[in-house]
Amino acid sequence: MKKIVAELITIGDEILYGQIVDTNSQWMSTELDKIGIKVVRKTTVGDLESEILAVFAEAETRADVILITGGLGPTSDDLTKDCLAKFFNCSITIHEEALAEVTEFFKSRGRELTELNRQQAALPTACQKITNALGTAPGMWFDKRDKVFMSMPGVPHEIKKIMTDHVIPRLSKKYQLPVIHHKIIRTIGIGESFLAEKIADWENALPKHIKLAYLPSLGEVKLRLTGFGTSLQQLESETNVWVEKLKERVGQFIYGFGEDPIEVVLGKTLRDRNLTLSIAESCTGGYLSHLITSVPGSSEYFLGTMIPYAYEIKMRQLGVKPETLEKYGAVSEPTIIEMANIVRAKFSTSIGVATSGIAGPGGATPDKPVGTVWIAYSDKHQTVTKKLQLTKDRALNIRLASIAVLNLIRQSLP
Amino acid sequence: MKKIVAELITIGDEILYGQIVDTNSQWMSTELDKIGIKVVRKTTVGDLESEILAVFAEAETRADVILITGGLGPTSDDLTKDCLAKFFNCSITIHEEALAEVTEFFKSRGRELTELNRQQAALPTACQKITNALGTAPGMWFDKRDKVFMSMPGVPHEIKKIMTDHVIPRLSKKYQLPVIHHKIIRTIGIGESFLAEKIADWENALPKHIKLAYLPSLGEVKLRLTGFGTSLQQLESETNVWVEKLKERVGQFIYGFGEDPIEVVLGKTLRDRNLTLSIAESCTGGYLSHLITSVPGSSEYFLGTMIPYAYEIKMRQLGVKPETLEKYGAVSEPTIIEMANIVRAKFSTSIGVATSGIAGPGGATPDKPVGTVWIAYSDKHQTVTKKLQLTKDRALNIRLASIAVLNLIRQSLP
Repeated sequence: MKKIVAELITIGDEILYGQIVDTNSQWMSTELDKIGIKVVRKTTVGDLESEILAVFAEAETRADVILITGGLGPTSDDLTKDCLAKFFNCSITIHEEALAEVTEFFKSRGRELTELNRQQAALPTACQKITNALGTAPGMWFDKRDKVFMSMPGVPHEIKKIMTDHVIPRLSKKYQLPVIHHKIIRTIGIGESFLAEKIADWENALPKHIKLAYLPSLGEVKLRLTGFGTSLQQLESETNVWVEKLKERVGQFIYGFGEDPIEVVLGKTLRDRNLTLSIAESCTGGYLSHLITSVPGSSEYFLGTMIPYAYEIKMRQLGVKPETLEKYGAVSEPTIIEMANIVRAKFSTSIGVATSGIAGPGGATPDKPVGTVWIAYSDKHQTVTKKLQLTKDRALNIRLASIAVLNLIRQSLP
Repeated sequence: MKKIVAELITIGDEILYGQIVDTNSQWMSTELDKIGIKVVRKTTVGDLESEILAVFAEAETRADVILITGGLGPTSDDLTKDCLAKFFNCSITIHEEALAEVTEFFKSRGRELTELNRQQAALPTACQKITNALGTAPGMWFDKRDKVFMSMPGVPHEIKKIMTDHVIPRLSKKYQLPVIHHKIIRTIGIGESFLAEKIADWENALPKHIKLAYLPSLGEVKLRLTGFGTSLQQLESETNVWVEKLKERVGQFIYGFGEDPIEVVLGKTLRDRNLTLSIAESCTGGYLSHLITSVPGSSEYFLGTMIPYAYEIKMRQLGVKPETLEKYGAVSEPTIIEMANIVRAKFSTSIGVATSGIAGPGGATPDKPVGTVWIAYSDKHQTVTKKLQLTKDRALNIRLASIAVLNLIRQSLP
């Protein structure tokens, strides 16, 4: 089977000059990878005809699939369409179906079609129009013998829709691609190198056609198993055997499989078990609650939070005993225990959690350096505390402490 | 004056396959832009010698400055150094000063130098070693006639330090660059197209050597004026005249100049005026507090938050009157007024603010669609409310509503 490879070309001064970050190409690479097409090069060029034409020609010598994003707006500095017409040696004319689509797009939003927008329905005659359900610039698919050039606008949600609905299915049909099976295993509470050590011999025993990738992100490490073969069913069951072996080794760190992050997985558990949650967060300053409430439907299990940032608020509003604060300080085990228990009682929830620490850069003492954080979990059976020693970076400490609490809830649930 | 142009080359399978997002090149483009060097192309290639050598040769034909990131780790799939030695036709030997630096780096962290790490001090003989103060892989600077190849590791904070301390000063010295002056004007509370309309004739009247760029981000629009000339002082005073004219036109939307976002500017104002803040946030679920507390030193003016996510918590814990909630609902002007006033009184702060709305996707009613959000500001002189009609997207609504509150505080401060 011939290996199909792709190149991504991004067109636009605003990306070249650093005015916006290109997040599209990461997403596109991942999607192509899933169907067995490797990206071998990514290039970004500005709004300059000679550069655009040159990169088209170069890409054709190296790749089978050339995916182009950007430069399709209605203004004069958008050159992609003209360059494609030159490259494919054809003219540009109004595409009737594209015109109907863009007219409908404006009509449905109660706006009138301007001449500038009408021109977005003018396409190179050599292309097949690909519907852009979420925008006004259609996608353009060019077959060139066994190669494909595909042009899309640069707007992230438009690209995702066009890729998912049209480009991926068309590529899967056009080329004979390997059967690939991906399985994501999500771990939390263990660093990448410790995890790697624990599973080294498991990894070494994997058959050649199943590859392992480490995908670390803030506070968690995802493992991705990618199997290559001829039968999807066989790959699936084979992969599952390896996942079971992995569970025996590091099962306590695995919180889920697939796309859902910890706050979503935890939310499902709380809802399924009819449990409710309240939070008293100090050093995390709202970020823990934000993670919880970023999940749609979180109001079914999350009732509320108190952020007692100031010392007096910890006493007067939350109700931590002045003696406790005076004797042990705000960043201490006795205080964090009271915080978690009080918020659970006050808010009448099944579970209460709390954070208190030195996020930094200020506030450190000799025995409590920046990055010292206490977290606690409380339910009617138990109160669990944990002391974290995090980093010197404020933003990182806020995020890491919040994720550590989510993990503490996961581990402590009744 | 010859125009100096640059290319950025990123090396690494992990970026090509979409496992991590490349944020370095945006930052690098911006820094080069500031000293008058335009990036004309960005290329990402994988860990493959033929590809790396090819892209070095191609870049040399087009650019004066070639900045290379990635592929400098100690493992065998990191090829940048070998490729550079081949490209510059030289050998690789231990660089004594680099060895001393990497030894010291490990010593200061109480770790021993392994052979693998020792090899990081082996450098191509054709390069000048550039100190990497935050990591173990040194930077490498190659002069090739009037061109420069500069190789750096891929770690964002290492790159920033090397670029700021070494690369930018060296490039400014090596090339005769134009004198450039940047001025960032930060606006909030007005959309890009409305702003553009209001200042169209001001923009058209700008002299040719002062360029305007719109840099929109979530909830705000930055304007960047870039002046090109021969005297920095003259450019500065000239730009200031244009900024004054801009203030006459859209002064009420301008909240600051330079790098500080709204939460930092607002924090300074609160501190300078000895004002304190408390928050009752419902639909924003902690994100507003997170923005405020992401600023170091925010504990000087921010005392605390109540997040009364559930109906009962709004009543029992915060103390909103049951009659108000029953008669008008949680998402209403009477409720939001009570929320802001109560939290200000309870927490004894100068200012209280509140949010309540339908973040979505659930919870909408015919007269309160997803995206309906009430916000309020309260101090001892006044209570100000605002109804927002935002988007259908939960994450966006949470962020936009939070930023709208920051702007409401700015506008309403005593």
